[in-house]
Amino acid sequence: MPTRAYAAMAARQPLQKFEYEPGALGPNQIEVAITHCGICHSDIHLIDDDWRMGAFPLVPGHEIVGTVARTGELVRHVEKGQRVGIGWQCGSCMTCEWCGKGAEQMCKENQATCVGHHGGFADSVVVDGRFAFPIPDRLESENAAPLLCAGVTVYSPLRAYGVQPWMTVGVIGIGGLGHLALQFANALGCRVAAFSSSGNKEAEARSFGAHDFATSTDPTAFADRRGTLDFILSTVFVPLDWAAYLELLRPFGKLCFVGAVTGTLAIPAMPLIMGQKSICGSVIGGRPVIAEMLDFAARHDIKARTELMPMDQCNTAIARVRESKARYRMVLKN
Amino acid sequence: MPTRAYAAMAARQPLQKFEYEPGALGPNQIEVAITHCGICHSDIHLIDDDWRMGAFPLVPGHEIVGTVARTGELVRHVEKGQRVGIGWQCGSCMTCEWCGKGAEQMCKENQATCVGHHGGFADSVVVDGRFAFPIPDRLESENAAPLLCAGVTVYSPLRAYGVQPWMTVGVIGIGGLGHLALQFANALGCRVAAFSSSGNKEAEARSFGAHDFATSTDPTAFADRRGTLDFILSTVFVPLDWAAYLELLRPFGKLCFVGAVTGTLAIPAMPLIMGQKSICGSVIGGRPVIAEMLDFAARHDIKARTELMPMDQCNTAIARVRESKARYRMVLKN
Repeated sequence: MPTRAYAAMAARQPLQKFEYEPGALGPNQIEVAITHCGICHSDIHLIDDDWRMGAFPLVPGHEIVGTVARTGELVRHVEKGQRVGIGWQCGSCMTCEWCGKGAEQMCKENQATCVGHHGGFADSVVVDGRFAFPIPDRLESENAAPLLCAGVTVYSPLRAYGVQPWMTVGVIGIGGLGHLALQFANALGCRVAAFSSSGNKEAEARSFGAHDFATSTDPTAFADRRGTLDFILSTVFVPLDWAAYLELLRPFGKLCFVGAVTGTLAIPAMPLIMGQKSICGSVIGGRPVIAEMLDFAARHDIKARTELMPMDQCNTAIARVRESKARYRMVLKN
Repeated sequence: MPTRAYAAMAARQPLQKFEYEPGALGPNQIEVAITHCGICHSDIHLIDDDWRMGAFPLVPGHEIVGTVARTGELVRHVEKGQRVGIGWQCGSCMTCEWCGKGAEQMCKENQATCVGHHGGFADSVVVDGRFAFPIPDRLESENAAPLLCAGVTVYSPLRAYGVQPWMTVGVIGIGGLGHLALQFANALGCRVAAFSSSGNKEAEARSFGAHDFATSTDPTAFADRRGTLDFILSTVFVPLDWAAYLELLRPFGKLCFVGAVTGTLAIPAMPLIMGQKSICGSVIGGRPVIAEMLDFAARHDIKARTELMPMDQCNTAIARVRESKARYRMVLKN
């Protein structure tokens, strides 16, 4: 039976119905019947071919939840009928240094779910089963789907860069990624400050776990918070005054980019040196971190705030993301 | 008895004889009879008032070794006649968070040895005794003096940023700081690569512990070493093509600045994100790290390669530093 999907046939085109044959499963592959798929800004970048990597037809979607429909002969860790999630990555070599270390996102053969592979805006998807993660019962599929990409994208750096419960964490951009970052940082025990260009998000940001809210277009927001943050997570992809954010960091503080900021960052050297500060980045997370993040989210009741739409309204849902109207993640449902 | 020193009376002037009264000792202060004092590039920056912080007359010198001549009433950890070293910092509040954590270099009241305080180009100096460190017997004073600033400046980041024995460390700039960085990184068990604009330093760099040497003006040096380094320590204060050095880092690698690079660094964002790399900085080190560094240097036979000159030839010695002729550290001797 062909997979029924929605695809962009060329850059910047609306999605249209698209069918393809999933073919026979490899020994480690599984087919997942998709129930939910979130829409990430990366999907928009791919549709628009912003990164010059898209092969069209492009089936977007990499925040997938569904049930296992078929399993390859070597698959043992999930079984038919089980609910699983799939994120940005759906395969890697599983033999290199990075795969061995559980940092599969660094594998040179890493396979993205919707780059050179048909993604989750569909009724099913075939992936390497080792990149399908059981979803804890406590999480609803709709709220869990965005955790597979947005969730691990913000959780992984908090963990990898040594954020501790006694620290203060700033989150720049309170959208799909940011609203999850506020929840994770709060659950990690940190004091949390939200930075948004939309002053009207304060109440919601506080409901997600922010103890402090700053409207980033207000210059006094910076003067008041100078030297107060240990870690800043930037979830935006627009260039901001990074030197001003560096000033918000305490000694030994880190400014971490997870939003896909293209171009060049202008970073003053002396504050880095004199304050022993870092500028760093992070991209998704390896398999062990994804599994841990799902468990942590379930234990701490962390969930994406979503707007649900039927899969066949994917173009309408995409438009809401483009217009930054999604509060906070659009999720498509079959 | 007045202290006999050498001072710059105004910016960019040769040093001249200068006497001042050291005065009565505070309870925690000690007076040290100076035998040796290294010359650091920072001394030149101060003489030239590059950082607009010099108060003249300026007595430079912050890589001091000597013997304790007098002690204040509360001083217990060193005694008269004992050999000690003093580095860039000679005082702090000793009560704030950072002093409590052994990161006194971050104290807001941190007192530099030769900024607003008469430094080590002199026959004696008065400092807070808590910033005087016993020199292990195994270290010669001449070779130990540069450890107090240059040594800890390169040792501290290797330690703070998690460099491990199985890693590969690159050192940019094989001068006063760099030749010590090669020794420390080698002694830490790392594979070590030296990057110098002077191809004629290869043999010496290897003698300091480099396993690999690259002439940084040779473009093939970069192509050949792409993705091979876990940590790069930049000891230079000139702008280089930092994006090219970022490409030399392996995933999770860090590029750390300890040379006083002024101005703005141009850092491409996507390699930081996709490779989970960091740009960071470090400045000297706290008291526990200085003491540890001296012990580590003694155990591993790490010593500054020095050229010794009498204190009264300080202007000649400074000229050699200005001309980058020092191999590798000028040290003045009383």
